[in-house]
Amino acid sequence: MHSVGICGSDVHYWQHGRIGDFVVKDPMVLGHEASGTVVKVGSGVTHLKPGDRVAIEPGVPREMDEFCKTGRYNLSPTIFFCATPPDNGNLCRYYKHSASYCYKLPDNVTFEEGALIEPLSVGIHACKRAGVTLGSKVFVSGSGPIGLVNVLVAKMMGAAAVVITDLSASRLQKAKEMGADFTIQVKNETPQEVASRVESLLGCMPEITVECTGVQACIQAGIYATRSGGTLVLVGLGPDMVTVPIVNAAVREVDIRGIFRYCNTWPVAIALLASKRINVKPLVTHRFPLEKALEAFETTKRGEGVKVMLKCDPSDHSP
Amino acid sequence: MHSVGICGSDVHYWQHGRIGDFVVKDPMVLGHEASGTVVKVGSGVTHLKPGDRVAIEPGVPREMDEFCKTGRYNLSPTIFFCATPPDNGNLCRYYKHSASYCYKLPDNVTFEEGALIEPLSVGIHACKRAGVTLGSKVFVSGSGPIGLVNVLVAKMMGAAAVVITDLSASRLQKAKEMGADFTIQVKNETPQEVASRVESLLGCMPEITVECTGVQACIQAGIYATRSGGTLVLVGLGPDMVTVPIVNAAVREVDIRGIFRYCNTWPVAIALLASKRINVKPLVTHRFPLEKALEAFETTKRGEGVKVMLKCDPSDHSP
Amino acid sequence: MHSVGICGSDVHYWQHGRIGDFVVKDPMVLGHEASGTVVKVGSGVTHLKPGDRVAIEPGVPREMDEFCKTGRYNLSPTIFFCATPPDNGNLCRYYKHSASYCYKLPDNVTFEEGALIEPLSVGIHACKRAGVTLGSKVFVSGSGPIGLVNVLVAKMMGAAAVVITDLSASRLQKAKEMGADFTIQVKNETPQEVASRVESLLGCMPEITVECTGVQACIQAGIYATRSGGTLVLVGLGPDMVTVPIVNAAVREVDIRGIFRYCNTWPVAIALLASKRINVKPLVTHRFPLEKALEAFETTKRGEGVKVMLKCDPSDHSP
Amino acid sequence: MHSVGICGSDVHYWQHGRIGDFVVKDPMVLGHEASGTVVKVGSGVTHLKPGDRVAIEPGVPREMDEFCKTGRYNLSPTIFFCATPPDNGNLCRYYKHSASYCYKLPDNVTFEEGALIEPLSVGIHACKRAGVTLGSKVFVSGSGPIGLVNVLVAKMMGAAAVVITDLSASRLQKAKEMGADFTIQVKNETPQEVASRVESLLGCMPEITVECTGVQACIQAGIYATRSGGTLVLVGLGPDMVTVPIVNAAVREVDIRGIFRYCNTWPVAIALLASKRINVKPLVTHRFPLEKALEAFETTKRGEGVKVMLKCDPSDHSP
Repeated sequence: MHSVGICGSDVHYWQHGRIGDFVVKDPMVLGHEASGTVVKVGSGVTHLKPGDRVAIEPGVPREMDEFCKTGRYNLSPTIFFCATPPDNGNLCRYYKHSASYCYKLPDNVTFEEGALIEPLSVGIHACKRAGVTLGSKVFVSGSGPIGLVNVLVAKMMGAAAVVITDLSASRLQKAKEMGADFTIQVKNETPQEVASRVESLLGCMPEITVECTGVQACIQAGIYATRSGGTLVLVGLGPDMVTVPIVNAAVREVDIRGIFRYCNTWPVAIALLASKRINVKPLVTHRFPLEKALEAFETTKRGEGVKVMLKCDPSDHSP
Repeated sequence: MHSVGICGSDVHYWQHGRIGDFVVKDPMVLGHEASGTVVKVGSGVTHLKPGDRVAIEPGVPREMDEFCKTGRYNLSPTIFFCATPPDNGNLCRYYKHSASYCYKLPDNVTFEEGALIEPLSVGIHACKRAGVTLGSKVFVSGSGPIGLVNVLVAKMMGAAAVVITDLSASRLQKAKEMGADFTIQVKNETPQEVASRVESLLGCMPEITVECTGVQACIQAGIYATRSGGTLVLVGLGPDMVTVPIVNAAVREVDIRGIFRYCNTWPVAIALLASKRINVKPLVTHRFPLEKALEAFETTKRGEGVKVMLKCDPSDHSP
Repeated sequence: MHSVGICGSDVHYWQHGRIGDFVVKDPMVLGHEASGTVVKVGSGVTHLKPGDRVAIEPGVPREMDEFCKTGRYNLSPTIFFCATPPDNGNLCRYYKHSASYCYKLPDNVTFEEGALIEPLSVGIHACKRAGVTLGSKVFVSGSGPIGLVNVLVAKMMGAAAVVITDLSASRLQKAKEMGADFTIQVKNETPQEVASRVESLLGCMPEITVECTGVQACIQAGIYATRSGGTLVLVGLGPDMVTVPIVNAAVREVDIRGIFRYCNTWPVAIALLASKRINVKPLVTHRFPLEKALEAFETTKRGEGVKVMLKCDPSDHSP
Repeated sequence: MHSVGICGSDVHYWQHGRIGDFVVKDPMVLGHEASGTVVKVGSGVTHLKPGDRVAIEPGVPREMDEFCKTGRYNLSPTIFFCATPPDNGNLCRYYKHSASYCYKLPDNVTFEEGALIEPLSVGIHACKRAGVTLGSKVFVSGSGPIGLVNVLVAKMMGAAAVVITDLSASRLQKAKEMGADFTIQVKNETPQEVASRVESLLGCMPEITVECTGVQACIQAGIYATRSGGTLVLVGLGPDMVTVPIVNAAVREVDIRGIFRYCNTWPVAIALLASKRINVKPLVTHRFPLEKALEAFETTKRGEGVKVMLKCDPSDHSP
């Protein structure tokens, strides 16, 4: 392994021992935003060889079930997934993974870019499910790492304008740097007021809203804000039950769609990184050697920076 | 005009003077499930002539706006719609309507079948938005007139099995006659219990749920019941705000989609009626002459039968 | 193995030793329309057990490549496929197959229905690629076994009317029995004349044409016949190069789409067969025990009947 | 009127008096790539007022037929279209057009950008029909004005890499400037050889080919070049009948789709121009006042430059 990013879910498992129904019962290796170098391949593997630099897609279906057969393998209930208990992650020096889910990195793509394909994939999957296309007006709710990758990806897919909200001015500043056209620092506005500001900045209601906070009031704002016939994608996860203006969404045919991780995103991301069409490097704000993992986790826990990267190869700490 | 069906919304305007933001301020003609005979056409009309029997699509967009241009004219905010205030309906003897939204009935399709295209259209639009296709397993929640047309349409589109719920045994019996494969008479089950019974009867979770009640517990059951990657369509409308297990839907990528009336359904319905592929006649349980409209409305208000039909042509009360 | 149908491609390999680039170089077992009973399962198999009756999907991808991951595994270039050289088929007494591509048959579905899922799948895949939906008008070109299953499936998917063409009156008669609404016995009409007769019988141009002959003049007729904005699906395969009115198709936005076998059709077909919504039994016109395979192949070669079925289980020749 | 671009079809009507079935029988005003200033509006118009700068969509449906109702109004057989006989174009000083098809230009979009929305729309419609999306590899065949706008639009929609072919080195140079990643100067290669060079430059076969020449050999190359499961869009129009490797396309499920003009592209284009996400200005290589229209047409006829713009407002020749 070379570079492994720390995700909010890693911190959550470390601190709380569970996320929803997934409970850590035995010691578990964390990490699922990863890249490394192939040391050895199985006898049937033809697309990889020792020495190849690869990005690792953490989810590997265990069965060829109906979800796999129809191209939605992320929904397969028996899927293996790095660092979701009881499956071990890859924040370590050596790690074995299905070759079909290891993707060769071109020479002009760094290991860290390879590791960042994982958070980028959340944005790709969300924007694809949202149907972002040429000329879309997009409202991204929440300016954390996932909000930022959605800004990046929406613009890449041809969005004409993206407006983003957050409580924090510094996070909004980062969003501006990543390509957001407009920012809204929210305080105690009602959901309807947020929707109204979004419309006013864009000059029209957005066809697409990508909700990245999971907060009930933000989901409500997402419904009010989205244009009739448009789509609200739920990326952020909050409480199990939320109260929403469902009639407002229904009679305006605003679709509400969630995402579960991602599928079929690594080849897309690698093609974009290879052609230098997307720049994820600014996402990395901190680096630590694997030995200082605790310090790295503490940094992420404190909410500093955007993405903390752990360097697992003692002989190569390059990006 | 020949035959006009009474819809629940007609009764609601009559009794309450409003539905949501639509308020009856001036005297208004009711009726929007209608068929009749062309008496006169404008000079530019080429597809119709006096004497043609026609079914009437009640929504006529007033502007060629973005929704019309993209084929979703039902979402046009300035649309004319029969019997939605302040627009008059067509429960009367003579009525003027845009020729583009009058569809010629073949000789083998009756006036009442023509009038029933309106409620049938709700089923067509709902099942299209739901993505019902060959082999679908479908859960229809609620066995009123709209639930019944969804059963009919889902089967027509190739659904392999349909299960339907209701409080009333007699309504479920009607659903059986219309083609439902399984029925569930609900009492005080939890939403999860309903979902569980649906799965058990179908032998698997349904890919599609069509919710026709608007009741909060039924929407919740719809989310729990729908298979990962499937779709819940909201047809019934209840309170503005509802509490739903949004995370459950989101992480299983169960899409939640509403419908607003319908678009592009009349030609489909006429083709099906002409080829005798669909039988809507059993939906009509009562008939009254226009003079006895009050009696007809009282009958609908009491919830008797399925569909009450008013006969507007004094010289022809045939179906 | 219990029942195995004979396909035109089986006869072709037998007679000519090749189809296109696929050349029979070594002795090869034929047969890929098959059903049987599980004798033994691997240790990881949980959805099947000895004694289960199963239908067999003949194509099994060997790699989890981009096509598999996106739900189009039929396009995987390294796929295993029964009786496509060099892969052996399953016209024999015992046969080993990937459990993920063996589908359990419900008690009310016969072995022969199970074997017929293979040709039925061609119709399902073609009609899905064609976008047949509620109210579609469909033109099926060619009334051989594949034309017939397309009639069956198109009607199942809600097509309002299907017109079918053939040279042979008896084949057209069979099509009528399978649900075709109109038939055209073609002789030496031009492609434009055929198109014109199709339109005249349907009362409008069909949105969808399913071409099952591969003959150049029929492909041309398919283009001329299809309504603007519609789809022509190419199922029949003829000469490598054909001359077609491409401008006519292009400027009317008539899409031309081929199919390669099928994917994701077995569960659909089993659901339909289990709910008795589709009747494929009339397709079987001849039965032979495995010992009389030569006679069975001669029968198919002479073009007699529709589908010839070989009975591989010496103790059970039931359907 | 302010700025009107000259299109190849304008030159064709001028020189040959017809394109296909469209024959110039009476004197006809040319021009359909246009922008201007509103002088007067009808009483029902609310979205425009005198003084507004507008871009003009040249196609205006005359009937609300099935194509209009389903969002594909470009296919409406009775559509009005500027400078397609017998309908006059707008290469003149004053001109009347349906307000619904006049789109207000934001202050930061020039008249010439407004006029260029027409050719840009061909690219938008082609790339949408092609399904260009994030990470797509795209092969554009032909580097004329339409090839160039397809390069621009494909990149805007997130294409990872675009390769373009042409006979002319100077046209390929222009394509490079517009964003093409790779260029191929073709001479007398076979279609298979062109396909092979495309694959070799991209590192894989393109999912999408946009054919802009109409030449038979180029259509053939487009089929051979496109990846299994991909799409070939036919934009260029050549002879009525062409000979193509249809089996190759069919068995690899390469869809062949044409385009007829465009629909629903002006709002998309204006949103992109307003947000400065797309730069069409380099397309304009020549400008002439309306008085020198003949000289302008001679220039286009000689194939000089990319886009010739006529300036219709004697008091304002600004871009």
